[in-house]
Amino acid sequence: MENTPTVKDIELAAKRLDGYAVKTPVLESERINSRLNCRVLIKAENLQRTGSFKFRGAFNMISSLTDNQKKSGVVAFSSGNHAQGVARAARILKIEATIIMPSDAPKIKIDNTRDDGANIILYNRTDANRVEIAEEIIKKTGAILVPPYDAPEIMAGQGTLGLEFCDQVKNQNTKLNYLLAPCSGGGLISGNAIALKERSQNTLIYCVEPEGYNDTALSLKSGKRQYIKPELNSFCDALLIETPGKLTFKTNKKLLAGGLVVTQAETAKAIQTAFEEYKIIVEPGGAVALAAILSGKIDTEGEVVGIVCSGGNIDASTFKDVLDGKYSV
Amino acid sequence: MENTPTVKDIELAAKRLDGYAVKTPVLESERINSRLNCRVLIKAENLQRTGSFKFRGAFNMISSLTDNQKKSGVVAFSSGNHAQGVARAARILKIEATIIMPSDAPKIKIDNTRDDGANIILYNRTDANRVEIAEEIIKKTGAILVPPYDAPEIMAGQGTLGLEFCDQVKNQNTKLNYLLAPCSGGGLISGNAIALKERSQNTLIYCVEPEGYNDTALSLKSGKRQYIKPELNSFCDALLIETPGKLTFKTNKKLLAGGLVVTQAETAKAIQTAFEEYKIIVEPGGAVALAAILSGKIDTEGEVVGIVCSGGNIDASTFKDVLDGKYSV
Repeated sequence: MENTPTVKDIELAAKRLDGYAVKTPVLESERINSRLNCRVLIKAENLQRTGSFKFRGAFNMISSLTDNQKKSGVVAFSSGNHAQGVARAARILKIEATIIMPSDAPKIKIDNTRDDGANIILYNRTDANRVEIAEEIIKKTGAILVPPYDAPEIMAGQGTLGLEFCDQVKNQNTKLNYLLAPCSGGGLISGNAIALKERSQNTLIYCVEPEGYNDTALSLKSGKRQYIKPELNSFCDALLIETPGKLTFKTNKKLLAGGLVVTQAETAKAIQTAFEEYKIIVEPGGAVALAAILSGKIDTEGEVVGIVCSGGNIDASTFKDVLDGKYSV
Repeated sequence: MENTPTVKDIELAAKRLDGYAVKTPVLESERINSRLNCRVLIKAENLQRTGSFKFRGAFNMISSLTDNQKKSGVVAFSSGNHAQGVARAARILKIEATIIMPSDAPKIKIDNTRDDGANIILYNRTDANRVEIAEEIIKKTGAILVPPYDAPEIMAGQGTLGLEFCDQVKNQNTKLNYLLAPCSGGGLISGNAIALKERSQNTLIYCVEPEGYNDTALSLKSGKRQYIKPELNSFCDALLIETPGKLTFKTNKKLLAGGLVVTQAETAKAIQTAFEEYKIIVEPGGAVALAAILSGKIDTEGEVVGIVCSGGNIDASTFKDVLDGKYSV
């Protein structure tokens, strides 16, 4: 099994990303702070290149390939944000990319991936196995797989968000008592946990998942990777996974304080709040950590709470439905 | 007549605002750049405290009052963004504020102003004169008027955006060939023109107005302050004014390259583009400069173009209408 990245790997990733990734801003709302009786600092990673944090990990991994590997191109499977991250990183680095996407992914994510010049292979979530499709391409072309989370370079790339957040918070003469971030395979939260363990030892770190897809929360409780059965429909297209990554969970088991779970209605309310109070577009999967703090899943009175809003790729029609209250019950 | 502020006044304002105003981020979209064949840098001032640039001028002016003046409180009239800026600045500085707002201002703007503890007086745009209402309050209480644009401290405060933007662009090893910003009374564009004349001499500066409210564009052409007759309905509630400010126009006449005018449909398209490409919420009045570049009002091929998105206070119902295409024709 591959090695867990260290904070040195994350620092190296930050150097690789310098000038390529956006140093996303930290946003704050006095109204939300006073309503929740704590200080909420939003890391607006929806403003990252390609509209999500995924660019960080993808760019870090692809730019660390050897010249020979680069010639064979890269392949990835993704519901959309990782797809866009890989496609953009490959384009910048002038490498061919093939992306395998479910045909029901948000249109905005498919269109944007295509716009970045990637070859796109659509598959039906219920019929086909995306891993098998990828393996076939790899066998044929020798392309390198860029996994969505379970790889040290990916975790290190996502962890650069944490280094940056710590610096920004320090510049405001404060520190994070809590960090809450969305969780699917666990790449984002594990990379950030490694960064914060070094830079902000006392921060309590929680991952947040949507109802029905709480595999990491269950796994953290039992101490072993658990599988969920995807039964509930969820609009959090970026977070629909059945079990945590192997490498990511090894870190998360050690470093996380726990896992929180939010409902669809709570997530919709968070998207509305991001619209009204922070003036940013957050997609469902990117809004679950904000949803957790807004709906009181954890007692943070008087504390400084870092919230990662991890992506903003939402179709206009879904966004309108959210504002209309379609998901509010 | 009061004196035009200098870049030194703007630098002093920047010191006063340090730690209070947000250093709003500069956003970029590869897709928009390649579509327009130029580099578009968005100054996302919708992410400013209170959701618009108006906080800068209000805080600068109120914090420069004498202790005695502060005791009498402040009064302002505004359709909403200046109202919120003054209310928030007064709250931070612990000063009483009375704000006169039109009863048809966006609900979000009235609610937010009230939330900041200001006394609100609503008036009917067609019946009552807001200046007379303000004068009555001043006579009774001795409160200080915080004008929306035509005062040196206000212009200097808004100009801090320009200093900041120049620094941010310099950090990216480039410079602005063009700067486009929304214009109503002219406080924002004049303050920024003064800042850029010192820091970025060759930048061509254009103000942008909505169709039917192009008083500054007309005045720049004739060299004298012109009045328009407000006949068209416009959803750009922040920009509905009949003539430029006296002090602001004195500067704008000297320093601006010209005035651009955009239609409602072009502005609606810009709000949609801000949603899709930049992941931010921009209100109609805040989106006119983006609208001007997107709809080709000026030839900027191969150039670096700074665009100020000046505010994000838009009701959810109007935003939904924009996404629905209600304003697209």
